[in-house]
Amino acid sequence: MLCVGLDSDFDKMPPHVKAMADDAGIAVRGEFFKGKPRSVIAFNKAIIDATAPFCIAFKPNLAFYECYGNAGLKALEVTVDYIRSNYPDLFIIADAKRGDIGNTAAMYARTFFDVMDFDAVTISPYMGTETVLPFLEYEGKFVITVALSSNTSASDFQFFNCDGKPLYRNVMEKMMSISTPDNMMFVIGATKAGQLAGIREFCPDNFFLVPGVGAQGGSAGDVIKYGSNSMGGLIINSSRAVIFASHGEDYATAAASAASHTANI
Amino acid sequence: MLCVGLDSDFDKMPPHVKAMADDAGIAVRGEFFKGKPRSVIAFNKAIIDATAPFCIAFKPNLAFYECYGNAGLKALEVTVDYIRSNYPDLFIIADAKRGDIGNTAAMYARTFFDVMDFDAVTISPYMGTETVLPFLEYEGKFVITVALSSNTSASDFQFFNCDGKPLYRNVMEKMMSISTPDNMMFVIGATKAGQLAGIREFCPDNFFLVPGVGAQGGSAGDVIKYGSNSMGGLIINSSRAVIFASHGEDYATAAASAASHTANI
Repeated sequence: MLCVGLDSDFDKMPPHVKAMADDAGIAVRGEFFKGKPRSVIAFNKAIIDATAPFCIAFKPNLAFYECYGNAGLKALEVTVDYIRSNYPDLFIIADAKRGDIGNTAAMYARTFFDVMDFDAVTISPYMGTETVLPFLEYEGKFVITVALSSNTSASDFQFFNCDGKPLYRNVMEKMMSISTPDNMMFVIGATKAGQLAGIREFCPDNFFLVPGVGAQGGSAGDVIKYGSNSMGGLIINSSRAVIFASHGEDYATAAASAASHTANI
Repeated sequence: MLCVGLDSDFDKMPPHVKAMADDAGIAVRGEFFKGKPRSVIAFNKAIIDATAPFCIAFKPNLAFYECYGNAGLKALEVTVDYIRSNYPDLFIIADAKRGDIGNTAAMYARTFFDVMDFDAVTISPYMGTETVLPFLEYEGKFVITVALSSNTSASDFQFFNCDGKPLYRNVMEKMMSISTPDNMMFVIGATKAGQLAGIREFCPDNFFLVPGVGAQGGSAGDVIKYGSNSMGGLIINSSRAVIFASHGEDYATAAASAASHTANI
């Protein structure tokens, strides 16, 4: 059930990977990389190869690629191509938290599903159903709506009592009314694992993408206990606890260990 | 008070601008452009030069650049540089609707304020105050939080009664409590112009970015009547109604006319 989050932050990489940013650069899949994006490419390739045996999905976080401008987006494109070519059975999630009006959402859908070959995109639901409808038109692709996030300030708005139910439940029920479990999943933060059982009652069939395991403090055991359904129904994400398990030369084997450990809980 | 939204959709461009996508390409500011991003560059340059005399801000919509992958992001970077170099007094807004946990938000802040030279970024607030805090650390830059959007499905969640107040008001009050009018603005949709007066009562000092004028049906006159404060306090956005005012050879002069007309209401 493990998803490895590719929040590939240059500042947290091992020194010998950081040092690659100073070399002459490399050509990968027809594109040339130098500087920090060159380190990102090398880091991602090693992490992907090391952890692929233990996971069902990879989830690049767009922020960690866009921060290098167009060169970063090129590194993302190459990363997605690398996963698709070498591990065709794995699911690839764009952690983008997009959410905009219909004509803009349609462009984002094209970006992530046509231009890049992602299987799913995370969506922030504040602007309503229009934010997801254009994505749902793509056969075999998924929207993953943020319902209950794993961060501290999730409670600022997501637990508001709205018409007798918390906001996050209203969001889920509205999104469920315009979609099916074959094109809609939900982000449900693992730091609230105890609430998962209650959420499964009104949402029995959709997959949950569960962040917050590992660095953010959630327990994978609790998530499985409270959040599973008959088909599994869970994608449990770990980012920093896997990809930065070691900051030494052994970072890839340490990531494999951390992934294997999480996958076997 | 006019902001021109650079939602530069290739499919809506005049035929002679579309045709540039088939030429050999051009070098602009050290980058080479061909295909659709080449048309986007030519279109933006003409629209910017034609409308700059009538506006206070430009607002590129990220979706219309990311849809070409890294080449699109390069077109965005060149567009921002072009505005900054030629019209240094104009305000540049990244319409990105980002909103993620703290460490991710910090990377987005770096992207839009350090890597690219935007003055402000739109933020989707569902995940709470953490989504904006890293942006607020940049002196002289602004977060523009989506409070009340202009789309049809805005009413799905934004008007929920939460603790006696609509969700959008809770969002605004929470964001106001951690910021100042010198680093926080709000998106307030113009299709709800009648509500602007009530919003001004509890939020007298912050600027409002008002979309929904023009193609989405809102009236600029109503927005000014109900939404102004003593300093003006408004940035009124028009995208499609200005940049696609004509689909002919005269598209730039037509855009200037539309911008001038909106600016003089």
